[in-house]
Amino acid sequence: MKDLNAKIDWLTEDLEALLGTHRDGYAMARGFYTSAEVYQEDIKSYWNQTWIWVGHTCQLPQKGSFFLFDYGPESIIIARDRRGEVGAFVNVCRHRGARVCTERAGRAHAFSCPYHAWVYELNGDLRAAREMDAGFDRASHGLLKAHVRILDGLIFVSTAENPPEIDDAIAELKPLVAPFRLDQLKIAHEASYPVPANWKLAIENYMECYHCGPAHLDYSQSHSLKDPHSITPELLASLRKASVDAGLPAEANFSWSKVGHETADMDAYCGRYPLYPGYHTGSKDGALVAPLLGDLKTPFNGANDMQLGILNNFLIYSDHVVGYRFVPRSVQETDIQMVWYVREDAVEGEDYDLEDLTWLWHVTTLDDERIIRVNQEGVNSFHFRPGPLSKMEEFMTAFYDGYLDQLTRARGGA
Amino acid sequence: MKDLNAKIDWLTEDLEALLGTHRDGYAMARGFYTSAEVYQEDIKSYWNQTWIWVGHTCQLPQKGSFFLFDYGPESIIIARDRRGEVGAFVNVCRHRGARVCTERAGRAHAFSCPYHAWVYELNGDLRAAREMDAGFDRASHGLLKAHVRILDGLIFVSTAENPPEIDDAIAELKPLVAPFRLDQLKIAHEASYPVPANWKLAIENYMECYHCGPAHLDYSQSHSLKDPHSITPELLASLRKASVDAGLPAEANFSWSKVGHETADMDAYCGRYPLYPGYHTGSKDGALVAPLLGDLKTPFNGANDMQLGILNNFLIYSDHVVGYRFVPRSVQETDIQMVWYVREDAVEGEDYDLEDLTWLWHVTTLDDERIIRVNQEGVNSFHFRPGPLSKMEEFMTAFYDGYLDQLTRARGGA
Amino acid sequence: MKDLNAKIDWLTEDLEALLGTHRDGYAMARGFYTSAEVYQEDIKSYWNQTWIWVGHTCQLPQKGSFFLFDYGPESIIIARDRRGEVGAFVNVCRHRGARVCTERAGRAHAFSCPYHAWVYELNGDLRAAREMDAGFDRASHGLLKAHVRILDGLIFVSTAENPPEIDDAIAELKPLVAPFRLDQLKIAHEASYPVPANWKLAIENYMECYHCGPAHLDYSQSHSLKDPHSITPELLASLRKASVDAGLPAEANFSWSKVGHETADMDAYCGRYPLYPGYHTGSKDGALVAPLLGDLKTPFNGANDMQLGILNNFLIYSDHVVGYRFVPRSVQETDIQMVWYVREDAVEGEDYDLEDLTWLWHVTTLDDERIIRVNQEGVNSFHFRPGPLSKMEEFMTAFYDGYLDQLTRARGGA
Repeated sequence: MKDLNAKIDWLTEDLEALLGTHRDGYAMARGFYTSAEVYQEDIKSYWNQTWIWVGHTCQLPQKGSFFLFDYGPESIIIARDRRGEVGAFVNVCRHRGARVCTERAGRAHAFSCPYHAWVYELNGDLRAAREMDAGFDRASHGLLKAHVRILDGLIFVSTAENPPEIDDAIAELKPLVAPFRLDQLKIAHEASYPVPANWKLAIENYMECYHCGPAHLDYSQSHSLKDPHSITPELLASLRKASVDAGLPAEANFSWSKVGHETADMDAYCGRYPLYPGYHTGSKDGALVAPLLGDLKTPFNGANDMQLGILNNFLIYSDHVVGYRFVPRSVQETDIQMVWYVREDAVEGEDYDLEDLTWLWHVTTLDDERIIRVNQEGVNSFHFRPGPLSKMEEFMTAFYDGYLDQLTRARGGA
Repeated sequence: MKDLNAKIDWLTEDLEALLGTHRDGYAMARGFYTSAEVYQEDIKSYWNQTWIWVGHTCQLPQKGSFFLFDYGPESIIIARDRRGEVGAFVNVCRHRGARVCTERAGRAHAFSCPYHAWVYELNGDLRAAREMDAGFDRASHGLLKAHVRILDGLIFVSTAENPPEIDDAIAELKPLVAPFRLDQLKIAHEASYPVPANWKLAIENYMECYHCGPAHLDYSQSHSLKDPHSITPELLASLRKASVDAGLPAEANFSWSKVGHETADMDAYCGRYPLYPGYHTGSKDGALVAPLLGDLKTPFNGANDMQLGILNNFLIYSDHVVGYRFVPRSVQETDIQMVWYVREDAVEGEDYDLEDLTWLWHVTTLDDERIIRVNQEGVNSFHFRPGPLSKMEEFMTAFYDGYLDQLTRARGGA
Repeated sequence: MKDLNAKIDWLTEDLEALLGTHRDGYAMARGFYTSAEVYQEDIKSYWNQTWIWVGHTCQLPQKGSFFLFDYGPESIIIARDRRGEVGAFVNVCRHRGARVCTERAGRAHAFSCPYHAWVYELNGDLRAAREMDAGFDRASHGLLKAHVRILDGLIFVSTAENPPEIDDAIAELKPLVAPFRLDQLKIAHEASYPVPANWKLAIENYMECYHCGPAHLDYSQSHSLKDPHSITPELLASLRKASVDAGLPAEANFSWSKVGHETADMDAYCGRYPLYPGYHTGSKDGALVAPLLGDLKTPFNGANDMQLGILNNFLIYSDHVVGYRFVPRSVQETDIQMVWYVREDAVEGEDYDLEDLTWLWHVTTLDDERIIRVNQEGVNSFHFRPGPLSKMEEFMTAFYDGYLDQLTRARGGA
């Protein structure tokens, strides 16, 4: 229990002192969003210790297919090896540290470091290193291997030695989203929205819909999440009926509650909320913008949020999926990365129009870009003091708790 | 008394150690102009504790008129409220810190935060905050209010809890500049000259005219300040006569002395010095470039320096006023901001020509931009050792003393 | 002796801790290439304490000729004074630190500071300073003088108070390279290749040819250094014969060994290695690209490496010389600077074609730029651990040892 009367140094950039400033139910202090030391710790002790959504198996169609995922100073190679297995490796040569793979995606027989030509197999093992001493042990110099989990095609990676438990969460989520057949998707569009703000301000923005009413006029026309009072029993009953008609599990959790496994640093969530009458999906006029996903028989007229690991967010409509991540680049540079998925056999121009498909979350993300930026500008002020949160920002509290706990443990740990 | 024989670490960037390096009559050490820690302290403990000239009442013609003034990471809203009072507020939402006002200037009924729509009155009070807990206290969540003082239309603001005494200085300056009718000005032109240097090197440049002879050929043709030896008794007698003829107080201080109140962190100054024969104002050919200011009957053929708070400088000619400030943007980025004022009823194109009006201080500031830049470049060297000052740089000593004292007190204080 | 079982904090950016992480035969840790503190120390305690190659006497044809050499935050004036002597001075005014010389090169009667017009003689002495107190001592306010040594026209400078011993090394190198007449060169071309990497990664790249095979296809066609196994006794005998025929000393050291003086912070080296049959110089087709240097009678069909001070590298062919340096600009910005010299009486367009002359090392440096960049990208990862070096990287070890020793001594010293 903190002594709320103790004088707090709100302006500290010292991580130890910063951790002591946080008060439940309030925003976090300035230094968490301005300090270079905190940013380093964010990568080392948070991102490198958790699960990160890096892509989808549709990006690895063949043996030898690979792609990169980068964040902060890190780069991960995700590749399908000769046996067809999906693996992930730290993109850093074990010799003098060069990136061994410099293409963003492609197909390879092996990874040959561009500097001194150490050659690594598709599964990360070191195949060859020229002119080394006789005593050199090739077996212990393979690329560092990351942990990999796949949920219906969505690939999650962790570079932690002992990553947080995730298998229970996957097991609980799987039946809830099975009818969407997330393993049978293709990428319709990818976009990156750079925002001059700390990554935590970007992810906080995604975690609450308190701002949706004032900031997102288009979204608010169709999505009930912006106003809990508007989610009437009639609307919920209608969503439940449409869901069952569509072939989705009836017992799915509809709103505001958590499903499955949760630790300080591993959140998983699944929940559906209604679209307003007349809206079948997240589109301008409410009409579908792509073929129904997977095994759905009819649209369920709602939005299905799914989260696996607190950094990884998916919004599943009847006809498309939008994945979100908030990728740190520097203390105050973040890329909001979005991927629009449709069913794998849909054909652009015939089955869907790219502009219609992407319209809602393109305009919504432009709004977010603006408000996240002005948030950072104000937080930079030495006069900023964290204010009290609204009840519509309760998910942020879960993020804060996990984040602060993780950083505290990292300092106390080995 | 410092031990001058003690070995000094001239290369330290540690603020505590830096404060111990200063020697009277010498420039300040490298670290004051290169250290990120010092820069943070400059904003927190110097700029946020002193008085800053932010603008003029002519920018707030109506109830609801507002404009922003930004420096470092700070942003201040200056607004005229429903009662007609001028107020100033920290532009940071009391909820999660977004800038509540993102327009540079305009007219508003209230300030609604673009993030979550907390609404603030024109006087800074919080009018509304949606979906907060029952216990939320609106009264204690208004925008942080800054202190405001107005000297004949010129607006000064301090965000300090207890700002330095300023009222005595205003009282002493007022009669000295009354005939200029500074309350009856309009902005003819504003310009910002970015210079890749620490703000202190920019303000030091303004504080001494030792460089005027070598660096400012145009200025030196007309302004006697560049060479104290050229200010003859005849020139002073002529200035005195012209001043009295113009309607200015005879007893005004003409040169090199201080008027009024002075503390470590609050300087005020007023003084006139002669232009060379043939020059009535700061212009290319010496001819007036705008109508006579206020109640002046004839030109006084001099330049009237006025300073209220060490950061805020004004040069008053018979026909126009130039205001200067040196706004920090980062450790080595500063905006030299200038405002040219003429009497409020002057009409551009008829009563004054903008190019003629701004010529002298535009070319002079371009020179300053260059020499401040090469100053910073040299100061960045690890071989730089502060050298001895000339007697023509005595005002810099006052700045150093106040600055060092302020930072020392900030470290010892709460 | 370090305890190899002790847990090492590979991710520290603290210099003291970093110095403890190094293991013989391995690359250096991440922090040496990422830490701002280390970069400051690199300039202060390494570059400012060693010998730097700044240019050639051909750039100072007359009394009053001068040029600047800049690195990190430092700037050095190299000038020929009224007596014809070559001197070097810190380009920082002894008053308030402005750069006194802002032209890159030219001819001057004196150096007048652009800020307050303190005037310095061509030999650095302070000639005049206006308006100073009577007690001001002009004699003690000259520009700081750097130490200067000249090896056959090549100018080396040190700003250290007590620079490392260099005269023995010069004495040993002189006879080995005398026939090239390095004092009779002219600059044919200069180029700067900016690379987003720490300067140490750039210089390490120059110090080993382990990467030449995979990374430099053009270089590897002609230069045997890329593959020690290809340097057959026949090839060495052929080089020895061609060298003697050309007029070079027979006893010169041909490969892989050091010549002359060596301390922790002062390396000197001279060695020749063969070009493959058919190649007379470093050119596309092996044909000479400029007139034979100095007193050479015939081409020696090899490449002569020369190093004087670990930062300064020269590659001498029969017909031209290429000088290299790796100039720090910030923690992760470095300019690879190259100068192509030919004999002083060669005429461009007649005796040599610039494109032919510069082709090999232009394309080779473009390759280096790319691999140094991907090296830095990977080293930035928190997952990077220094790997074991190949025997073809043995010269890097000498650099590491000297560098670490120098930084260690700087911390223990005054």
